[in-house]
Amino acid sequence: MSLHDSAIAAAVDALMPEAADLFATLARETADPEIGITRPSYGEGETIAFRRVAEAATRHGLVVGTDAAANCIITAPGAAPKGAGIVTGSHLDSVPMGGNFDGLAGVVAGWLAAAALRRADVTLANDLTVIGMRGEESAWFSTHHIGSRAAIGLLPADELDSSRRFDSGRTLGEHMTDLGCDVAAIRAGTATFAPADVAAFLEVHIEQGPVLVYEEIGVGLVTGIRGNLRARAACCIGETAHSGAVPRGMRHDAALAVAEFLSRAEAMWIELEAEGRDMVLTFGKVHTDIAQHSHNKVPGRMDFCIDVRSHETDTLDIMEAFLPKLAAEIGARRGVTFDLGRFSRVTPAPMAASVRAATTAAADALGIRTMEIASGGGHDAGDFANAGVPAGMIFVRNPNGSHNPDEAMALEDFAEAVKVLALAIVRLDRAQAAADAGTVAA
Amino acid sequence: MSLHDSAIAAAVDALMPEAADLFATLARETADPEIGITRPSYGEGETIAFRRVAEAATRHGLVVGTDAAANCIITAPGAAPKGAGIVTGSHLDSVPMGGNFDGLAGVVAGWLAAAALRRADVTLANDLTVIGMRGEESAWFSTHHIGSRAAIGLLPADELDSSRRFDSGRTLGEHMTDLGCDVAAIRAGTATFAPADVAAFLEVHIEQGPVLVYEEIGVGLVTGIRGNLRARAACCIGETAHSGAVPRGMRHDAALAVAEFLSRAEAMWIELEAEGRDMVLTFGKVHTDIAQHSHNKVPGRMDFCIDVRSHETDTLDIMEAFLPKLAAEIGARRGVTFDLGRFSRVTPAPMAASVRAATTAAADALGIRTMEIASGGGHDAGDFANAGVPAGMIFVRNPNGSHNPDEAMALEDFAEAVKVLALAIVRLDRAQAAADAGTVAA
Repeated sequence: MSLHDSAIAAAVDALMPEAADLFATLARETADPEIGITRPSYGEGETIAFRRVAEAATRHGLVVGTDAAANCIITAPGAAPKGAGIVTGSHLDSVPMGGNFDGLAGVVAGWLAAAALRRADVTLANDLTVIGMRGEESAWFSTHHIGSRAAIGLLPADELDSSRRFDSGRTLGEHMTDLGCDVAAIRAGTATFAPADVAAFLEVHIEQGPVLVYEEIGVGLVTGIRGNLRARAACCIGETAHSGAVPRGMRHDAALAVAEFLSRAEAMWIELEAEGRDMVLTFGKVHTDIAQHSHNKVPGRMDFCIDVRSHETDTLDIMEAFLPKLAAEIGARRGVTFDLGRFSRVTPAPMAASVRAATTAAADALGIRTMEIASGGGHDAGDFANAGVPAGMIFVRNPNGSHNPDEAMALEDFAEAVKVLALAIVRLDRAQAAADAGTVAA
Repeated sequence: MSLHDSAIAAAVDALMPEAADLFATLARETADPEIGITRPSYGEGETIAFRRVAEAATRHGLVVGTDAAANCIITAPGAAPKGAGIVTGSHLDSVPMGGNFDGLAGVVAGWLAAAALRRADVTLANDLTVIGMRGEESAWFSTHHIGSRAAIGLLPADELDSSRRFDSGRTLGEHMTDLGCDVAAIRAGTATFAPADVAAFLEVHIEQGPVLVYEEIGVGLVTGIRGNLRARAACCIGETAHSGAVPRGMRHDAALAVAEFLSRAEAMWIELEAEGRDMVLTFGKVHTDIAQHSHNKVPGRMDFCIDVRSHETDTLDIMEAFLPKLAAEIGARRGVTFDLGRFSRVTPAPMAASVRAATTAAADALGIRTMEIASGGGHDAGDFANAGVPAGMIFVRNPNGSHNPDEAMALEDFAEAVKVLALAIVRLDRAQAAADAGTVAA
């Protein structure tokens, strides 16, 4: 480790008690009366988090502001800002009765990195912005990633009027107005950050799955955010019949048809994995007709849903072609009719090679063991990536999954992730400064 | 066809308008206010059917009575009753909003056969009894085959008190008392027919499946009544997880585990069928956790039920051994836990070779095309068979399944079934008389 790198790492360690205090304060102040943590999108708990993070930033001499969408904007001005700055952060809201770390960990990590760089007397050439975003969780307004999409000017205006918060029944626009947002600017698509003005976006987030725990590694470097291919209301129509009196050849059993569909789709998954592809496949709801089914009736209908995720667009393409073909083949043979409904699609967001290289180099410099990992859930970083910003993510090991009161994160793992973040920021800033100088020189 | 046989057939044909009228009258008098036919067990519609059948029997000089369980007992006394008589019939009740033929067809067939024999001047050596039984359908009291089990003295006394009719909330014993039953005799297990005193029991019934329609044959000769092996509350417990963030190898997906279980059980079914075994297999209810499931969660639980039917006890044995083994193997490999719960078992009731030979000979003598067929549903005949009475069943083609308002039966098919019944009765009576004579002579 260079002296410079070790000074930054030491500054992160020195600030950790303050970070621990910030997590503890917010756990207390945004505790749900029943269980866990509740920080509603564009609501009170989210604003409490905004305030506490802003206070911590101010204490460390960082510049605190807000944007049209009421995101928390913390700036560490660059020494010689000639070009695009670096943005890091995550979201301030949580699901109802969720945990303390999904979102907040990334905002605190950004603040910590900026404060540690300042403490270690590291001055970046260009601006470093820490963003605490609002409205990432779809639990509140059905729509999601509100703060990030507004920040890059890509929130469709109609969502302001059509999305209503499930608990208040009021629209997103109304809730934004309550918080003093510039709704007209959002409606006009005014961006806080023009994608071209952002050199890189980095987000620290707890892992939402068990991979890092299983691999006994504290920090994951994300290869890409999986897109998805979904059929939310697929069904198979067969023919209800007497379970005793109808022989096999005359049955049109929807349950056995769907069982074959699931098993063969799973076999395809195994095959694609063996080819080295990234994919997960889930049939979250599978059920015979709850109102009509009976132990002595051959099921005449089965409903199910399909969720395919991959960070490779062509893997989603393969499945989008395969699944209807499979359904048609099984349907024809068994005399049942599959209707998979409309597939919806979310584009995968690969993380930028430049940012992945910077985080890898940072971890190597610090001697921190990491592994590459795909993100299964969507994140604000995906919106930046799909808008053309070079993006990267750093995952922190979490034994208990996310969106529940048991989300957990060892502060040791978190400190390692923040160190990787801070060093990667320095590396990316230098590269950007060099490029800027080259551009000027050229 | 012998002159004798053709005289009986002609008598059946001559009586068919009266049978058609009886069906039409009861369709009208027991019509449900909403749709279809409703003849509640130990209730009004069932009693109306009793009365109309009794009237028809009386018109033809048959002796009408009742037993302790209020079954309709119609007797055609034998010329020289030395031994066991023949009993034929079926049940008078229907499911709520059911059809006109499930049950009633067999009672009318018995009456028609007895009346036709009388009209054709055929005198049997021993008594012929036509029975119109009550309370066969489980829809009313949960328990089933009440009249038949009471008639052979095998209705457990506790059912009189523990079974309540779903619509009235009153016990079977109370409903029986309303109808003047001798509840004390039933409680004591007093039989209307001691099994040893019955030479044969024959039941005509509509087919409850589509086999005769598919084969374009009007009459089926039943090989046996399938028993069953059931798990009504099986489940598979896996682990709920994020549908995007958990890789395949770390999942414990209950839906995919159950899909494999269903598909492999189906493969076993196909294998057993290929060996010439009789079996049907149904998973009537299969569902992820309705309260918790979501398109973005790996299902942590799946509930299902299993219904295996066969008229071969050893086929049920094979499946009872196979299914838990299969569940254990899949569970161990996938890290999920199957709990199939308790298997319940209903013993198959093979039809007696002597009765099957008599119905086959009768059909051959009449030139009526028939086919052998297994009964998938349970019937009163099964109780007689399992009590040791040689039993047989004759199915009538029905395009629309049973227990619904669309049950249908062409009177031509019904007439053929009645002719087979009448001639089989004559053959069985002669055989019994010869045996009785032999016994006396010996």
